[in-house]
Amino acid sequence: MNFADRLNQMLVLLGYVMVDVAVIGAGQTKFGNHKLGLKGMWAEAAENAYSSVDLDFEPRQIDEAFIGSVAFGGSQLGNTAALLTEHSGLDGIPVRRVENACASSGFALRDAWMAIKSGQADIVVAGGIEKMNDLSAERKRFWLGVSGDTEWERLAGLTFPGTYALMARRHFHEHDSSHDDLVHISVKNHMHGFENEHAHIRKQVSFEKAESGFMVADPLTLYDCCPTSDGASCVILAADHVARQFTEDPVWIRSSGAASDRLALHDRPSVTQLLATQKAAKAAYSAAGLTANDIDLAEVHDCFTIAELMATEDLGFTDHGQGGVFAREGRGVRNEGAVCINPSGGLKSKGHPLGATGTGQAVEVFKQLRGTVEDSRQVRDAETGLTHNVGGSGATCAVHIFGRERNG
Amino acid sequence: MNFADRLNQMLVLLGYVMVDVAVIGAGQTKFGNHKLGLKGMWAEAAENAYSSVDLDFEPRQIDEAFIGSVAFGGSQLGNTAALLTEHSGLDGIPVRRVENACASSGFALRDAWMAIKSGQADIVVAGGIEKMNDLSAERKRFWLGVSGDTEWERLAGLTFPGTYALMARRHFHEHDSSHDDLVHISVKNHMHGFENEHAHIRKQVSFEKAESGFMVADPLTLYDCCPTSDGASCVILAADHVARQFTEDPVWIRSSGAASDRLALHDRPSVTQLLATQKAAKAAYSAAGLTANDIDLAEVHDCFTIAELMATEDLGFTDHGQGGVFAREGRGVRNEGAVCINPSGGLKSKGHPLGATGTGQAVEVFKQLRGTVEDSRQVRDAETGLTHNVGGSGATCAVHIFGRERNG
Repeated sequence: MNFADRLNQMLVLLGYVMVDVAVIGAGQTKFGNHKLGLKGMWAEAAENAYSSVDLDFEPRQIDEAFIGSVAFGGSQLGNTAALLTEHSGLDGIPVRRVENACASSGFALRDAWMAIKSGQADIVVAGGIEKMNDLSAERKRFWLGVSGDTEWERLAGLTFPGTYALMARRHFHEHDSSHDDLVHISVKNHMHGFENEHAHIRKQVSFEKAESGFMVADPLTLYDCCPTSDGASCVILAADHVARQFTEDPVWIRSSGAASDRLALHDRPSVTQLLATQKAAKAAYSAAGLTANDIDLAEVHDCFTIAELMATEDLGFTDHGQGGVFAREGRGVRNEGAVCINPSGGLKSKGHPLGATGTGQAVEVFKQLRGTVEDSRQVRDAETGLTHNVGGSGATCAVHIFGRERNG
Repeated sequence: MNFADRLNQMLVLLGYVMVDVAVIGAGQTKFGNHKLGLKGMWAEAAENAYSSVDLDFEPRQIDEAFIGSVAFGGSQLGNTAALLTEHSGLDGIPVRRVENACASSGFALRDAWMAIKSGQADIVVAGGIEKMNDLSAERKRFWLGVSGDTEWERLAGLTFPGTYALMARRHFHEHDSSHDDLVHISVKNHMHGFENEHAHIRKQVSFEKAESGFMVADPLTLYDCCPTSDGASCVILAADHVARQFTEDPVWIRSSGAASDRLALHDRPSVTQLLATQKAAKAAYSAAGLTANDIDLAEVHDCFTIAELMATEDLGFTDHGQGGVFAREGRGVRNEGAVCINPSGGLKSKGHPLGATGTGQAVEVFKQLRGTVEDSRQVRDAETGLTHNVGGSGATCAVHIFGRERNG
């Protein structure tokens, strides 16, 4: 133990805290249509996370839990966090549900990270869950719809595909982009997800097929829209001073950035940029001392292909307005571009169980950085990864940066 | 600045954090039946909190927000936190909804407190909101009901009054207690709330009247049950190193304790004790270096009078089994007993807008400790206060201790 480590340990003991946060385990269910109920799905995701911890670990060592879910109460069950706690060996600890539309578990992750950094907890679970297919078509529309603006958009008939279609049309108008660029994104994400055993839609899609999908909201076709999935995901975080008890191979959370924006499109200065993403990314890069150039892989929130196109710009992987060129040139393809965008298949192929999506992204990054995904899916030399989880049509956003290395 | 302060400042600058958390402002709407919608109620509570800050303060100085709500999606609106953000001058900051049944804003407060202790934010809002009277009778029953156990209790017909009636019957069976003791609690809380301008039900109730209320769930009558209210509440927290910019009279959060328990009564070793309350209280007392004897006033979660009786035991104000005697002897009456229980009138009189209740308790304690409640309601020599917020029939609990003094 060198002098800095000794000083750090002494100060931690005195109550002065400067804690780095490690991911020591992560797991999820397959995303898709589940026969398992909510409790069974959560238990499976938690068990997969527990068993991914390398060394001796018992769930009763967990101090606190944060669980993201949007429509949990849309089923017959409630008091989500305490209910799931019972079914995953987490007896008696402080637990709560975090709800932030489709960014629910991105914020659960942020809050779990802060709980450890506060010095109040050493081992914390962040997770998420959704069972979309338990909901009636009407309730499903409701829970998706209320995440955007209600008074000016939803109640006037604008659904999410329509919202993102407006963004796409405007992007095509302002910049060098077209629907073909979105098709490239769809084809890439289906290719990435094809070999992911946890993905909802595992099929290769040709450019011609994705180009001629049936129209959902012009210009977005079926191949531009993610499915609504069932699923659960769970990550286990630990403070630096205990992490080595559980693994010799931790992944570090180098930073967390988050932000919000107006719900309604007409209240924003631009509909081709998500300010919440830009702010969250800026905060995360700054805290980690990194730039977009340092990121090897990114799980971005592609609820629609245009959302991924915009995310590549807002996260700084390409310049504003250049997202179409980025997609067309295949710069997000695994082991071909400088950064792999959505190695899991993204929401488009891996699936989108609203509350489970954010920590699901973290599961993928954890496995990629540890080299434990299927060989054919492995991003080579992956040292640094990013997750990007969006709520509504950009009203909230959480960005996390993960690394094999701790901050310098 | 003495040596310890200098050392502290130096370590904070170096990234070593040991932050005490102050409440610098707090406000709420009246609880009751509101004509204002959700956004208007939140704006009013936030404005009342902002204007309670003594020195120059702008909402744009706030770094992050945590907002508790249970049934928000039961209205036509969603994406709660971002939506409310727009209506209270909090543009662009990280915000999320915290949902934990009736303990939602007790946990929002805990999470806001941890955000500051993590060193990631200096000024954080914790709040809560609910508009019960926007919900149909059916949806109201649903949102209340799902907070308890569903599969063995709710779907078998057991509603919350029934759950707490079981606890009361068992307490009367095991201990020296009877329904008369519950009547004393009801009379006290109505007396305390009578002069509270923010209370839902402002009327004095005689022992005879409360004794003969119509039966809801034997032995609980109307006078044993809290109303369901509309309302919003908001507290502003600040890190010690910035708090003095905003007030020379901060109230300190001395500690936060929280816990969970099984949802179903049959899964607990006793139905006359809430283990989650006991654990949360133990953690809070221990972290503050205090005992129940040090508490001058406590806002406890009296959704039913029997819940207050049990809370006086579980929080250590009297021995286990002695809650009936405590109530009967008037030991929780303002300026008569050693501790004032529910100076606001509690859920029984002040009202219970689910998600707004936890931070509403904190508003009362803040004002009592600063001496800014109505003169007739002032607890004399109030130095230390406690809030106790319960979710479901005891599945989750958050306890906070507030003081004029910081921890020693």
